[in-house]
Amino acid sequence: MRYARIPDQAVQRLAMYLRAVLVLQDRGIWHVSSKDLAGQVGVNDWQVRKDFSYFGELGTPGVGYDLRKLQRDIRRILRLDKKRSAILVGVGNLGKAILAYGGFARYGLRIMAAFDNDPQKVGKVVNGIRIQDVSMLKRIASGKVSLAILAIPAASAQEVVDCLVDAGIKGILSFAPCPLKVPKKVRVVGIDIAMHLATMPYYLSSD
Amino acid sequence: MRYARIPDQAVQRLAMYLRAVLVLQDRGIWHVSSKDLAGQVGVNDWQVRKDFSYFGELGTPGVGYDLRKLQRDIRRILRLDKKRSAILVGVGNLGKAILAYGGFARYGLRIMAAFDNDPQKVGKVVNGIRIQDVSMLKRIASGKVSLAILAIPAASAQEVVDCLVDAGIKGILSFAPCPLKVPKKVRVVGIDIAMHLATMPYYLSSD
Repeated sequence: MRYARIPDQAVQRLAMYLRAVLVLQDRGIWHVSSKDLAGQVGVNDWQVRKDFSYFGELGTPGVGYDLRKLQRDIRRILRLDKKRSAILVGVGNLGKAILAYGGFARYGLRIMAAFDNDPQKVGKVVNGIRIQDVSMLKRIASGKVSLAILAIPAASAQEVVDCLVDAGIKGILSFAPCPLKVPKKVRVVGIDIAMHLATMPYYLSSD
Repeated sequence: MRYARIPDQAVQRLAMYLRAVLVLQDRGIWHVSSKDLAGQVGVNDWQVRKDFSYFGELGTPGVGYDLRKLQRDIRRILRLDKKRSAILVGVGNLGKAILAYGGFARYGLRIMAAFDNDPQKVGKVVNGIRIQDVSMLKRIASGKVSLAILAIPAASAQEVVDCLVDAGIKGILSFAPCPLKVPKKVRVVGIDIAMHLATMPYYLSSD
């Protein structure tokens, strides 16, 4: 079932709660108070309770939240309760780091194909995935894949994004340091490393 | 001079405006309307005018904003009007990608040192920077460096962060997929690639 529209900030926090829940479960912990969970994520406990109210999770006074139920609930609301595949475009150092990273599985996410425009890379196998030519992007079975990670320079980003949208990709995580134009139905999250670093000096108290 | 506290979301948008301004200037454009700038960044033009009101930038009716003045103003408010150095901890694939990336300079940012705990890497030179042992983090001249980029696994992240805080680092951009505890005076921006991707299925309209 689909829930009432949840604010983007809350969706991001829900993912952070899920991450914290997984970390706690790894430590063999089965229950957590909103206060402890808030501490893990760096928010106030009233924020935790408000966010959980989106899916009616109330916890048990004195016992707190059952982490197994919490994980199940958050996965359901974030639609991570089924396995999902993503593709990677751009297999430079960043792309290689992403292919080598094992952290996607815990969210039920899997990178099932990688693409690059460098003939030197096409055909090579990185972490068990054979790199295909970007021209093959058209062939993506949009029914099977809805997510893409973009690890390419700004220059070719929009062209590749248009191609991904045509192929039926609905969510794009982009490391290209530029704005991208997509139809309303497509979600883009941009991670511009230099720009993120550039937001920090504002907070430097002493200089 | 310091300005009134600006909301985090606005600080992030100001960095996006700055990026857009730089792109427009690269194209030889010298004036832009709030509408066109909004389109570049993907916000409404009233949002642009509201954000610019934080530093009293009003633009000229019919002419729009002078991009040179806008760039200067945004750099000043984001405290990017002086060159700043950052260090990198973790020189795996992601760290290498960061060292190879030329996009920091446009914000006046420079990675001036890199650290790793792998004896195989220490002493090697990547993109003109000699990799030092993490034990050398203590020696950072905190007066010269206030920013750090963390490209290491979760396991060792908190330990390294404590070390960075002791060394006087005030801003940390972390790719470690875990929450980090820091004193209030230290700013941490976390980029957890898998978690960011995990927020996307919620927005997938059709499945």
